Amino acid sequence: MNFASDNWSGATDAVMAALGRHRNGFAPAYGTDALTKAVGDRFSEMFEKEVGVHFVGSGTAANALSMAAEARPGGLIFCSADAHLYNDEMGAAEFFTGGMKLIPLKAQNGLIAPETLAEGLARFPADNRAGVPATLSLTQASELGTVYEAGQIRELAGLAKGRGMAVHMDGARFANAVAALDVAPAEITWKAGVDILSFGGTKNGCWAAEAIVVFAPERLGDLATIRRRAGHTMSKARFVAAQFEGYFEDGNWLTTARRANGMARRLAEGIRASGTARLGWEPQANEVFAALPKTVIAALRVDGAVFYEWPAEGVALGPEEDLVRLVMSFATGAEEVERFLGYL
Amino acid sequence: MNFASDNWSGATDAVMAALGRHRNGFAPAYGTDALTKAVGDRFSEMFEKEVGVHFVGSGTAANALSMAAEARPGGLIFCSADAHLYNDEMGAAEFFTGGMKLIPLKAQNGLIAPETLAEGLARFPADNRAGVPATLSLTQASELGTVYEAGQIRELAGLAKGRGMAVHMDGARFANAVAALDVAPAEITWKAGVDILSFGGTKNGCWAAEAIVVFAPERLGDLATIRRRAGHTMSKARFVAAQFEGYFEDGNWLTTARRANGMARRLAEGIRASGTARLGWEPQANEVFAALPKTVIAALRVDGAVFYEWPAEGVALGPEEDLVRLVMSFATGAEEVERFLGYL
Amino acid sequence: MNFASDNWSGATDAVMAALGRHRNGFAPAYGTDALTKAVGDRFSEMFEKEVGVHFVGSGTAANALSMAAEARPGGLIFCSADAHLYNDEMGAAEFFTGGMKLIPLKAQNGLIAPETLAEGLARFPADNRAGVPATLSLTQASELGTVYEAGQIRELAGLAKGRGMAVHMDGARFANAVAALDVAPAEITWKAGVDILSFGGTKNGCWAAEAIVVFAPERLGDLATIRRRAGHTMSKARFVAAQFEGYFEDGNWLTTARRANGMARRLAEGIRASGTARLGWEPQANEVFAALPKTVIAALRVDGAVFYEWPAEGVALGPEEDLVRLVMSFATGAEEVERFLGYL
Amino acid sequence: MNFASDNWSGATDAVMAALGRHRNGFAPAYGTDALTKAVGDRFSEMFEKEVGVHFVGSGTAANALSMAAEARPGGLIFCSADAHLYNDEMGAAEFFTGGMKLIPLKAQNGLIAPETLAEGLARFPADNRAGVPATLSLTQASELGTVYEAGQIRELAGLAKGRGMAVHMDGARFANAVAALDVAPAEITWKAGVDILSFGGTKNGCWAAEAIVVFAPERLGDLATIRRRAGHTMSKARFVAAQFEGYFEDGNWLTTARRANGMARRLAEGIRASGTARLGWEPQANEVFAALPKTVIAALRVDGAVFYEWPAEGVALGPEEDLVRLVMSFATGAEEVERFLGYL
Repeated sequence: MNFASDNWSGATDAVMAALGRHRNGFAPAYGTDALTKAVGDRFSEMFEKEVGVHFVGSGTAANALSMAAEARPGGLIFCSADAHLYNDEMGAAEFFTGGMKLIPLKAQNGLIAPETLAEGLARFPADNRAGVPATLSLTQASELGTVYEAGQIRELAGLAKGRGMAVHMDGARFANAVAALDVAPAEITWKAGVDILSFGGTKNGCWAAEAIVVFAPERLGDLATIRRRAGHTMSKARFVAAQFEGYFEDGNWLTTARRANGMARRLAEGIRASGTARLGWEPQANEVFAALPKTVIAALRVDGAVFYEWPAEGVALGPEEDLVRLVMSFATGAEEVERFLGYL
Repeated sequence: MNFASDNWSGATDAVMAALGRHRNGFAPAYGTDALTKAVGDRFSEMFEKEVGVHFVGSGTAANALSMAAEARPGGLIFCSADAHLYNDEMGAAEFFTGGMKLIPLKAQNGLIAPETLAEGLARFPADNRAGVPATLSLTQASELGTVYEAGQIRELAGLAKGRGMAVHMDGARFANAVAALDVAPAEITWKAGVDILSFGGTKNGCWAAEAIVVFAPERLGDLATIRRRAGHTMSKARFVAAQFEGYFEDGNWLTTARRANGMARRLAEGIRASGTARLGWEPQANEVFAALPKTVIAALRVDGAVFYEWPAEGVALGPEEDLVRLVMSFATGAEEVERFLGYL
Repeated sequence: MNFASDNWSGATDAVMAALGRHRNGFAPAYGTDALTKAVGDRFSEMFEKEVGVHFVGSGTAANALSMAAEARPGGLIFCSADAHLYNDEMGAAEFFTGGMKLIPLKAQNGLIAPETLAEGLARFPADNRAGVPATLSLTQASELGTVYEAGQIRELAGLAKGRGMAVHMDGARFANAVAALDVAPAEITWKAGVDILSFGGTKNGCWAAEAIVVFAPERLGDLATIRRRAGHTMSKARFVAAQFEGYFEDGNWLTTARRANGMARRLAEGIRASGTARLGWEPQANEVFAALPKTVIAALRVDGAVFYEWPAEGVALGPEEDLVRLVMSFATGAEEVERFLGYL
Repeated sequence: MNFASDNWSGATDAVMAALGRHRNGFAPAYGTDALTKAVGDRFSEMFEKEVGVHFVGSGTAANALSMAAEARPGGLIFCSADAHLYNDEMGAAEFFTGGMKLIPLKAQNGLIAPETLAEGLARFPADNRAGVPATLSLTQASELGTVYEAGQIRELAGLAKGRGMAVHMDGARFANAVAALDVAPAEITWKAGVDILSFGGTKNGCWAAEAIVVFAPERLGDLATIRRRAGHTMSKARFVAAQFEGYFEDGNWLTTARRANGMARRLAEGIRASGTARLGWEPQANEVFAALPKTVIAALRVDGAVFYEWPAEGVALGPEEDLVRLVMSFATGAEEVERFLGYL
């Protein structure tokens, strides 16, 4: 029963097979090889638009380099107070942008409301001395297992664009969001005003494969150079491309994401039906947040269950309860979910 | 006949097998897993000393983060004018150090002479306004296929230490150097005054595996934080550890390095024996630099040979000659070397 | 009636006289001259301890270079949400520290409560991924016209030291605080745990004279180099030293500060006595915050009064009221204060 | 006999008078006052073009912020190996640009030859991995007392523009160059291809007054924000503006520059006529470089003369000779020059 995080899992058969397929022979270094080109084209096809694709090996790299591509002196980056960018990347965004300030906005179950963004922007009028609104970063699916619908993204992006800002999407769990919404990737990205996307592969079955996808190159800096200067241009770049080849093949990426989302739905269903536990809020992707009696948590841990307690902002807890986060991945077994539910 | 670079190759059987071995199940993220710990211990054993080990995915990352760990305001980094750090990393060292200045020193076939370093340091006395000598970076094996002996490293490091500087070694081809010198790794690193090492695995059979090895933590910054802030802390960190597991198993890393060095020796032998080509200088590791008639180069290219022309500083060329770089790797076939020699 | 800010004023007689005294002849550049040395000694005397003194020309420079001297990768800077450092310096602290994150704490009338700091620090335990608590910055006198007593500083600094942090004091209005508290400067700085101080002269009668005063050099970086690298080492450095010479002569700095504080007291008294206006909170230095009827504000503006409306966090306003900030300086005339009060 | 540097002098009568004129009353802070506006207009008039003007307090600040305004990731800055920017600013240019690399070019008596620049640029073709040619910085008058004619600047700027680079002029001694060439300032700046100028006032009679003059805002970053983020936006900004008011009044700036240049001419004449000393090269502005017998140097020092020995690159010296630098300023007395010559 390992529900700690989707980044505790390993690699799928398809990813391993692709790596095996491309491991022999020689190919130009630094991403000038044919495979990297071909997989890049696959992204353009998927997004129904010619996009720029820059592979990197970590989600923090994808986010921070995206921020660097949108950087301006004295700029401000607006994001949710729950954002990975703000809480879990050790100041990478600040570092790569020469010290841009992050403005964390209070979110509702991980999602920024338009009014909250509008209020946040209003605190920084044209001639203030704190900073210049420069970038909006939205996480999709959010860190709290919820998803933005296309219309919500459009509204938030519109507010940002009204201030001349760029719009970034942290898609570490983009596959889970696409699977949950069942929309074309274009609908929740560039068609809704997103300029640049951190497209994650790692949490959903790759070893170390993330892509920075550029929809609006005209408003962004020179990412190829920014990436190389950051040490994120891999020499045997085809090893990232190969992972994505396996990831996309036969729609694998959506299959694994749907599988993880399905486990989360089953888990939520069981929790809802139980007498002892309850959902913190409705899960929409592959993460479930639930209030559990401390005794149940203790019993689960004795049985080897791995998961994290989570800060319960916005969820009223009884004195004998804790909020826990349960993350499903492509590698989560159905029997583990049932076993977990058996404790409720 | 692909002699373009050792980073055009793929991954060895051993590396692929190790990845396959560890791809299932769950393990803590960000390098807190048991495999990462075990492989880290393997480094301590190899270096006969407890070392700090920080895995990253590219040689530029290893170098630049090492520079960051040694950074100080207004600091100067001394390196060879041929150094990868200076020529091929798009200013990563400068970026990660908040703008330290690199001072390229004229080298002899890739190796810095002690007098050259002494002269270079003398240009920056204690109260100068250009910068504070802070770091010496040596490449082992050098970018020009030569190696420093332990005594040479000790002398150079001594000069640097005399100015209070830290000493870094760029070991992108460390395995080739160890194989060439047939010494214990400790002898050409910390025992000779090296504080921090970029230990390369990628060019010698891994997909993307480099380790920053710290010998003198007391004089360096907090690398764990520096690495995370740079987006170089991988979430499924065990995938780098696994590569190194395969790399070290049964001495594989030295076997592949010796193989590549042996190919270079065979190639050099053939060139020395030929009437048409000659060596730029004696190769000591896995790279051969040779002056070839342009007609021979053209014929080789027609036959599909891949290699680079190289700036011929210090090598007198006839009007009909060019200097070329020929890089051997674990993946170079003996028959390709012979086929190449057939053109001479 | 100009109460806009103390940085709208000019220079005192004493400062102008000192500049005139030192304007002829030649003196070594970059602060190696005798006057700079002598004025530096004057600081050591005043603080009853040998201190390091680094002159700069702006308060933002003093703050940002102090932050740089305390910088560490991934570090966090804690300050009041009202801090100039956070709101008015366009990300200078973030820029000069390679992107350290500022954590704004809710303050009470400008002063951070120990519990607030403790709670803030608790959000970032030892192994969190957001950042490493590194620096506490306190403003004395605060941006809201209040002052910390020595005991309060000691308590806050103690909490910070308990986490290994450095303690900075933004003393842009340090003279006003010393005058208000009537204490020896040492009592509210190093004796209370302050490691480094931005000592302001500009707002209290100089043209452009600020000093970074270092109490704990052993825990800070090389400020001389950091300052030069920032372009804040002036070539005719004696022009800052001369200003401070005039500033300190015959206790001028406290005379002008007392004068400004006295004006604020008189203004507060008048407001307290009036039927129409009321104090936002008790002023302790040279700034008064008061709730005024909008009609009175309008009448004052017609008469040429200059001052700013201020966000009224924590002050309940009637629908026809606004909170205003009224800043007194050495140049404020008593008759202007009375004229202002005549409107109430 | 103080010939150490023009930055060892103080302030002129005109500058002091202007400071005195503006020291009373109140004016908006941070450069939004009427005087700053008026003096800014004076620059536009002088340059026959509407220019952007950003006052700062040091030449290093002017240079480094100019570099920041032209910064791009991985960019390269080309300058003379004698440049103040390279040798005397403690890496400020690198720091403010996020680590751009400076490429020092061998110059002839301080001036870069077009062929040298062309060769330097050719070393960094379009897809190299060391960096992207981004900025050319020319010093006028040069650090070695020579000046570029308009045609030379045009040729160098043309080469830079051919690579899409920005062109900066370090005019710490711009007045001396204008006086020497007797041209309109526009001719040797924007009409010759200069995009941005560090316009110095400090060395020629101000206390601390430098202006960044922007000719081509469309190709530069947001300097107002860059300056504030650097702590170089002074709060009582009118004190820099006042200095420039005095500086420009009645053509003072050219009067003092001509005076200094004249002293240099007289000194050169005397050296040329002497039997014991000789010129290193022909001085064109206010600095004279001469080879002197060591015995003469010793005798001068006994008499209290202050000046620096200088590296004698390109000047053949006898074993008993040293090269010295002799800098004239507005404050140099004619009698001091004659007294110096009396030793030859």
